[in-house]
Amino acid sequence: MLKNYQMWNGTMDLKSELEKRHSAFEGYWKKYLPVSKPLNLYNASRHLTFSGGKRLRPAIAMFTSESVSGNIEDVLPFAAALELMHNFTLVHDDIMDKSDLRRNQPTVHKKFGEPTAILAGDFLFAKSFEAMHDLPIDLQKFKELDYLLVQCVLNICEGQQLDIEFEKRKLVTEEEYIEMISKKTGVLFELAAKGGSIIGGGTQEEISACTHYGLNLGLAFQIWDDYLDISSDEITLGKDIGNDIRNGKKTLIAVNSLQNASGDNKNILDELFGNINASDVDIKRVFNVFNDTGSIEYARNTAISYINRAKDSLESLRDSEFKGILKDLADYSILREK
Amino acid sequence: MLKNYQMWNGTMDLKSELEKRHSAFEGYWKKYLPVSKPLNLYNASRHLTFSGGKRLRPAIAMFTSESVSGNIEDVLPFAAALELMHNFTLVHDDIMDKSDLRRNQPTVHKKFGEPTAILAGDFLFAKSFEAMHDLPIDLQKFKELDYLLVQCVLNICEGQQLDIEFEKRKLVTEEEYIEMISKKTGVLFELAAKGGSIIGGGTQEEISACTHYGLNLGLAFQIWDDYLDISSDEITLGKDIGNDIRNGKKTLIAVNSLQNASGDNKNILDELFGNINASDVDIKRVFNVFNDTGSIEYARNTAISYINRAKDSLESLRDSEFKGILKDLADYSILREK
Repeated sequence: MLKNYQMWNGTMDLKSELEKRHSAFEGYWKKYLPVSKPLNLYNASRHLTFSGGKRLRPAIAMFTSESVSGNIEDVLPFAAALELMHNFTLVHDDIMDKSDLRRNQPTVHKKFGEPTAILAGDFLFAKSFEAMHDLPIDLQKFKELDYLLVQCVLNICEGQQLDIEFEKRKLVTEEEYIEMISKKTGVLFELAAKGGSIIGGGTQEEISACTHYGLNLGLAFQIWDDYLDISSDEITLGKDIGNDIRNGKKTLIAVNSLQNASGDNKNILDELFGNINASDVDIKRVFNVFNDTGSIEYARNTAISYINRAKDSLESLRDSEFKGILKDLADYSILREK
Repeated sequence: MLKNYQMWNGTMDLKSELEKRHSAFEGYWKKYLPVSKPLNLYNASRHLTFSGGKRLRPAIAMFTSESVSGNIEDVLPFAAALELMHNFTLVHDDIMDKSDLRRNQPTVHKKFGEPTAILAGDFLFAKSFEAMHDLPIDLQKFKELDYLLVQCVLNICEGQQLDIEFEKRKLVTEEEYIEMISKKTGVLFELAAKGGSIIGGGTQEEISACTHYGLNLGLAFQIWDDYLDISSDEITLGKDIGNDIRNGKKTLIAVNSLQNASGDNKNILDELFGNINASDVDIKRVFNVFNDTGSIEYARNTAISYINRAKDSLESLRDSEFKGILKDLADYSILREK
């Protein structure tokens, strides 16, 4: 994997193009969260939001818009809406998951307390809809995009609820798993690409191409994220992986392994997966089952196949440097470091 | 107060008109929250939402719209947006306040757990914006109203944050208190009346009249709510009042009493108001100070004066039965039972 990442590093175009858009975005969206009163609410809203992050959704919105001849400036308010929405979900998810750390910093509720963290999430949510109002588009398009954003959040809520419920279930089918991550993660990537191409003035065919690109990229991204968690942590099997296994978190790796394990492997999963009292040695045994059933490799291959679908979706786009960049971005999204 | 309430019951017009709108509203808005999957999320979203409630904000939107010759049907999606937004804030506020009961039922987080309650609040929030899309209005008005709704939620978040912070402060001025309840409660009443008159096709002058009506009514409503809590509970001084006093909740009664108490009364407040270990006898002593400083009566009179301002705001409206009903509604909102 490291080798692949180094290979990606070789294509400098994407890296420098990403940096340009990152800097345009950072220069733009800070205005939505000034230092203002009540200070605690604004600081809590700024805490995670401005503490880094790849800004992948804004980048997708910008590149897809440019791929249909749009310009960066026109799409910035939409990019801000996406990233504000993404950060709202992170703040609330961290409360639900009782997570202490994100991006190597205390989570919002750890630093500001739960009531203010709930409020900060709500505030970011509303700010996302506020940013939409700054889009330089006609009223019909505004209403269309606003509706898409509403449907997107509703799906995200449903996906997060499914994620919570799946932890308590013994078995989850791969189909159910894909539905869950489609809603929880896929729809926002999908909206980034669809909205970008709408704002950029794409044709129906181009918008449809970008929409498929975004959704498949989002699915790959989520599967790869879980794959990275477990493979990068292979030697130490740190706290995060341990807790995911103890909580019975249904990643594709777990879903696949639960489906395919037999004999001793099945007994180990039955006893230890989703067992809150599993020891560190137990965690290692579950990991070995995941490996034995080929599920880690399976998740890796599934992510790659979604990336290929994402890239294939772009075929109908007119040829441009941005078509190439979108393909590179797809590769990057799964060959990245965490 | 009971006497006043009975007096109000004498004016049957408002009661029957309210019931008509209540029934039109209930028949309409249920479609936004069907029984659907994931069942727990939808059930959690329906739990508080459909367990009663006065539907005061929808009624204000309908009556203001009618007062400028609008019809009920056109305003229903907006009325739904208001009530969904209101219920979202209740669900999240109850988590923040660790409340166990609302409308004599377990709160959403008590019944469904905190993660699903946070999500249900988010879901209602998004549903509110979804309902806006069903308004039969032109695109320009849609964008205007959507923006007003966004600003309204942002204000509600700020107001709730101020409410939380005020509990930890020793003193709060009346001006700060009014700013807090304006944001926390006032803006949604204001939006109900403003939006109702916009959708109904009111003139700028009429919209402005309704806007002032809504805000003043909202302020009166909140002050009266706190007044009711303490006056209706005078004999028993139940759990709610006790907890408000122990938490140092800055109602207008508390704000006024803290400002005006001197001598022994001041010492009692210094020692017991905001003291989490205050006994039931202590709570009674604080209540007596509130009475001694005239603060309970002061809050009552302040609410009545805001109601009078609300009614005065309507003067510039054309004469109609709805102008009278809006005035009756203002009286009802403070002469109501809890």
